[in-house]
Amino acid sequence: MYWNQPGSHGACRNAAVRHAARLGSLSAIFFLALSPTEARAAVEGESAFVFNTFAFLVWGALVMWMAAGFTMLESGSVRTKNASAICLKNIGLYSIAGLTFYAVGFNFMYVGVEPGGWFGSLNFLYGPSADEIGLLDGQEEAAAAVIGNGYSTMSNWYFQMVFVATTASIVSGALAERVKLWSFFIFITVLTAFIYPLVGAWTWGGGWLAEMGFKDFAGSTIVHSTGGWAALAGALIVGPRKGKFRPDGSVKITPPSNVPIVTLGVFILWLGWFGFNGGSQLAMGGALDAVAVSNIFTNTNLAACAGVMTAICLSRPILGRLDLYAGLNGTLAGLVAVTAAPDIVGHHWAVIIGATGGLVCLVALRLLEVLKIDDVVGAVPAHLFAGVWGTLAVCIAGGGNFLVQLVGILAIGVFVFGTSMLTWFAIDRTLGSRVSTTVEVLGQDVGELGIEAYPEFVVMPEED
Amino acid sequence: MYWNQPGSHGACRNAAVRHAARLGSLSAIFFLALSPTEARAAVEGESAFVFNTFAFLVWGALVMWMAAGFTMLESGSVRTKNASAICLKNIGLYSIAGLTFYAVGFNFMYVGVEPGGWFGSLNFLYGPSADEIGLLDGQEEAAAAVIGNGYSTMSNWYFQMVFVATTASIVSGALAERVKLWSFFIFITVLTAFIYPLVGAWTWGGGWLAEMGFKDFAGSTIVHSTGGWAALAGALIVGPRKGKFRPDGSVKITPPSNVPIVTLGVFILWLGWFGFNGGSQLAMGGALDAVAVSNIFTNTNLAACAGVMTAICLSRPILGRLDLYAGLNGTLAGLVAVTAAPDIVGHHWAVIIGATGGLVCLVALRLLEVLKIDDVVGAVPAHLFAGVWGTLAVCIAGGGNFLVQLVGILAIGVFVFGTSMLTWFAIDRTLGSRVSTTVEVLGQDVGELGIEAYPEFVVMPEED
Amino acid sequence: MYWNQPGSHGACRNAAVRHAARLGSLSAIFFLALSPTEARAAVEGESAFVFNTFAFLVWGALVMWMAAGFTMLESGSVRTKNASAICLKNIGLYSIAGLTFYAVGFNFMYVGVEPGGWFGSLNFLYGPSADEIGLLDGQEEAAAAVIGNGYSTMSNWYFQMVFVATTASIVSGALAERVKLWSFFIFITVLTAFIYPLVGAWTWGGGWLAEMGFKDFAGSTIVHSTGGWAALAGALIVGPRKGKFRPDGSVKITPPSNVPIVTLGVFILWLGWFGFNGGSQLAMGGALDAVAVSNIFTNTNLAACAGVMTAICLSRPILGRLDLYAGLNGTLAGLVAVTAAPDIVGHHWAVIIGATGGLVCLVALRLLEVLKIDDVVGAVPAHLFAGVWGTLAVCIAGGGNFLVQLVGILAIGVFVFGTSMLTWFAIDRTLGSRVSTTVEVLGQDVGELGIEAYPEFVVMPEED
Repeated sequence: MYWNQPGSHGACRNAAVRHAARLGSLSAIFFLALSPTEARAAVEGESAFVFNTFAFLVWGALVMWMAAGFTMLESGSVRTKNASAICLKNIGLYSIAGLTFYAVGFNFMYVGVEPGGWFGSLNFLYGPSADEIGLLDGQEEAAAAVIGNGYSTMSNWYFQMVFVATTASIVSGALAERVKLWSFFIFITVLTAFIYPLVGAWTWGGGWLAEMGFKDFAGSTIVHSTGGWAALAGALIVGPRKGKFRPDGSVKITPPSNVPIVTLGVFILWLGWFGFNGGSQLAMGGALDAVAVSNIFTNTNLAACAGVMTAICLSRPILGRLDLYAGLNGTLAGLVAVTAAPDIVGHHWAVIIGATGGLVCLVALRLLEVLKIDDVVGAVPAHLFAGVWGTLAVCIAGGGNFLVQLVGILAIGVFVFGTSMLTWFAIDRTLGSRVSTTVEVLGQDVGELGIEAYPEFVVMPEED
Repeated sequence: MYWNQPGSHGACRNAAVRHAARLGSLSAIFFLALSPTEARAAVEGESAFVFNTFAFLVWGALVMWMAAGFTMLESGSVRTKNASAICLKNIGLYSIAGLTFYAVGFNFMYVGVEPGGWFGSLNFLYGPSADEIGLLDGQEEAAAAVIGNGYSTMSNWYFQMVFVATTASIVSGALAERVKLWSFFIFITVLTAFIYPLVGAWTWGGGWLAEMGFKDFAGSTIVHSTGGWAALAGALIVGPRKGKFRPDGSVKITPPSNVPIVTLGVFILWLGWFGFNGGSQLAMGGALDAVAVSNIFTNTNLAACAGVMTAICLSRPILGRLDLYAGLNGTLAGLVAVTAAPDIVGHHWAVIIGATGGLVCLVALRLLEVLKIDDVVGAVPAHLFAGVWGTLAVCIAGGGNFLVQLVGILAIGVFVFGTSMLTWFAIDRTLGSRVSTTVEVLGQDVGELGIEAYPEFVVMPEED
Repeated sequence: MYWNQPGSHGACRNAAVRHAARLGSLSAIFFLALSPTEARAAVEGESAFVFNTFAFLVWGALVMWMAAGFTMLESGSVRTKNASAICLKNIGLYSIAGLTFYAVGFNFMYVGVEPGGWFGSLNFLYGPSADEIGLLDGQEEAAAAVIGNGYSTMSNWYFQMVFVATTASIVSGALAERVKLWSFFIFITVLTAFIYPLVGAWTWGGGWLAEMGFKDFAGSTIVHSTGGWAALAGALIVGPRKGKFRPDGSVKITPPSNVPIVTLGVFILWLGWFGFNGGSQLAMGGALDAVAVSNIFTNTNLAACAGVMTAICLSRPILGRLDLYAGLNGTLAGLVAVTAAPDIVGHHWAVIIGATGGLVCLVALRLLEVLKIDDVVGAVPAHLFAGVWGTLAVCIAGGGNFLVQLVGILAIGVFVFGTSMLTWFAIDRTLGSRVSTTVEVLGQDVGELGIEAYPEFVVMPEED
């Protein structure tokens, strides 16, 4: 059931389509002149345009919804005294990502990246093409050029924008309960305006990693490991929560404060991931795309299912208890792991990749405890570790080049971790990255905002 | 980046398409015989029919989801002792809106409104066209007529129905914690059967305001200000919550009782708004529509982002604290503000309109406190004030006629506020609009229903 | 407004399309060679393929979202001490359903069921067709065969898979707070791998009940009653919660512990149901399908609205109080009831069917109390009783054969209830089906998992 052998035409063509489309408004030529096969298996002209655009918007809306998923996951995971603050961080980071990706990020990532290059245009703002404006203004003759682009400019922008926001969401959870609000927002601005778009330019933008043949379909590395590395850098600079790692070497247990909404968050993420992976086909304009997206949905679901069951079954031996929270992280790990190649692996491979993702995540959860790195929601295990696993798994199950995948993982890791460390360090030495001990003890809701999460409920004082 | 200059063909044509489609089953002629441009930029026949219908259903489902968003926003904003009651009000109001808009509302709003007229048909019930029934019954010859209508009758009904429900949802939040359940349901029946449909008949139905050239793409005024005026009238008649405004002039702080679900509610509304604004293009059957909807999605997102960040940044100077709740209301205000013209304003204008919306909302929040009007969730600032701003902003950014916009705002305001005052007054003098002091102190959950929202949790007694 | 008379072409053709498509990969012939009418009212070739596939994925994603709805409904309905356990059960059951339906369920239900037969293939695993793999691998000549199938193989799998998960979700709520985690998972494995697929093979798979003319469009009986019977069997074997039915004949009230998330769950289910019923048209590739799906959306919404209002209005006379929880169950009952025939009943009938569903559910809630059967969330009243009502209502409103409907209801009831009893009995005698009294008193969160749902909140000790 390997339906795309290594090096098969299908895989190559898919990659070409994806790269072309990820290039933004420059993709018209690639998109329309791929190969006779491509031409055969595509709905003609304007219908294809509408299918592709409609799909970008629908799948993009599902990915936008993931912002709510991260918010629920995180606000249910933190102490009640920090639950409002994490909500504010999440709605703020989504807003910042939306504004920076409009102002500079998209141009930097997709516009005018030279083949094998490092970054795109430094122009400000992004908008519909001149032809599209013409069409809206009633210029009949603009229609052909618009249709020739394969999809509407801003539908692609919308779909790519929600990916940046996802990357940013990964950081907020890891650093919850002690990072300063405005310092966090500044980091998010840098991450979404420059760090992520640069990684994107190397890969989906058509830059040097794409040229080498690096394969990462929907972003196991480009989105999830990037977020994970940024979170890890932040966790190192900001440091663990007060009392998390005790002098006697034991670890203070900090269970989620509201498990049902954590679970809701995971279901939201699962739902959104269909848009995340399925939409990364970047097209819905023909039978080939429709078949590919259907297989991607199936692989996405199977990997998540396998991640859940693996984490539930193995949580007792590895973590010492049957742990819902491990199961929930297993879901995400399974999803992250399959994200690098849901288009080309057979369904049974999706099960194996997802299950292994769940295992990798469990082991990494233990590892971070041993290394005394405090990651409140397990973002680094689920997104960074499972993302690396997924990017390597492409070679086993789908036929990527192991060395190239490794180069991509390392290059992106070194770059994102390095620039994130620098940014966090600069923030730490100027504004400070961490709230005062008083605010940390009181909680950020009372200390930084003026609003508690559950003001009427009686909550227990936290033990040390 | 003004992509539609005032009076451009694009804008006119878009408006024509919208009006035609909002007219319901009478739109066939308009829809199919607009202009050569329109014909050029549309997928042929049956495919366009399926695209338009599919889009109505998908975007409509997103708007339906906003009912859950309002419910979460409101049940997290009230005291815990009223959280079940507000859930019941919300699921009830959505149900009532669905039934009245089927029974009378749609006919009254869309069917047979004469150009420049005041209202439509007073017929009962609404249903598929005879041609559609014929097609379902196997009459091959009916297909052409069905396809000629451009979309299926009931997909349009579904999409319009969820708009009525949104209008009704705005009222429940403002009046929470003291309005009687059945009195509220009676008002909602009047609002959704007559008040809103009449406003709709004047505008989207093709009546006198449409004839004058009033522009309100997705309902800054028609939906949001209408809901806001109805809420304001209710707030005046029902009066503020006991103890909200103290004799010494100070205002009792009534913070949200469950901030994470309030935040969830806002994310749900944000997601739903893509359907709300994007779907108001009322078509997806060609490249022009697909481009327009993509731009609308982008503008909707940018305005919301700008509203959030403005409200977060300005909440301290205006309200005296960094306030998540202000940020959340800023989201809604940004969304409401851009709703009048997301199709024709440039993206940078969407940022400005949304940011200003956030500011307007903050100022209005203070204003209501000064005027001693008790609006539990800030519905009037976010929906009425930002809605008025957005309807005027059309002129600045997109080229509407300022005077016409003002006439529309005032006419709808006077009518909705007047009829709502009358209705609330009549209810107040008969059934009573407000629960007894005993019920208010006990909470509506115990006093009116038999079911508490959080019966196992220990909650603090409310202070005066 | 009967728009499909009994035996009309419309109804027959719809049924044919549905059966054909539900048959999975064997449906190509039926789908493409139905009748001249069908051919007339369908978009040509590849566009239809994309429409159908896209619709399966979009509607399927909405149904997948119902898993979150059940989780919220159930975790808000149980005691706080069991809220984590029910979250784990729900994410686990969805995962198990996804894996079993891939491994064996789909083949067993849809592949190679002989007309009038009892079950399909016992092959393991399921995947894309050889033609689809060929197309993905660049074999141009495979395109025609792929397109000829009408939709992509795995989009159909995805859509059917989420239905199995729904069936399983019904069971978890009824047995909450006392069924052992792993015993529950074992039952779910049997249910999703064999019991449900067998019922499906008889009906949607084209087996003996389909041959008889049994009508159940989207699964009032096939999904909801099946889930309800399985839940009832479990409730009988596992027994009521300790102290639920007191020796003096009175019933201990066990109100939902978190009403807002219960309400959220109901809204999620309502939203998902548009995908559930609308998607069961199994096609979106032409005007006829688009019209049908629009009518289905409308009927689904009207039935739910009517169910809500009936339950709210009648809860005081029947249950002795104005009960939000009854209203919420009324929503589900209305939705379940209309699920058997949302395609062929007139809209006014949808109102009547939904309202009656709400009433049936209220009466059944009382009945279970009298029979001392403990169903934590009212799953049996809402899914089994309303499902039976809906399946019979087809005859009144849409023209099915009463006797055939009765045979279907009874055959499926006897089979599902019987095999479920056997399975639960076997589990009970080996692993045990019920947690120890200690665990039940402590709660499954502490007793079985290592994680409480709300560890920081002070909750009241439960009274007997």
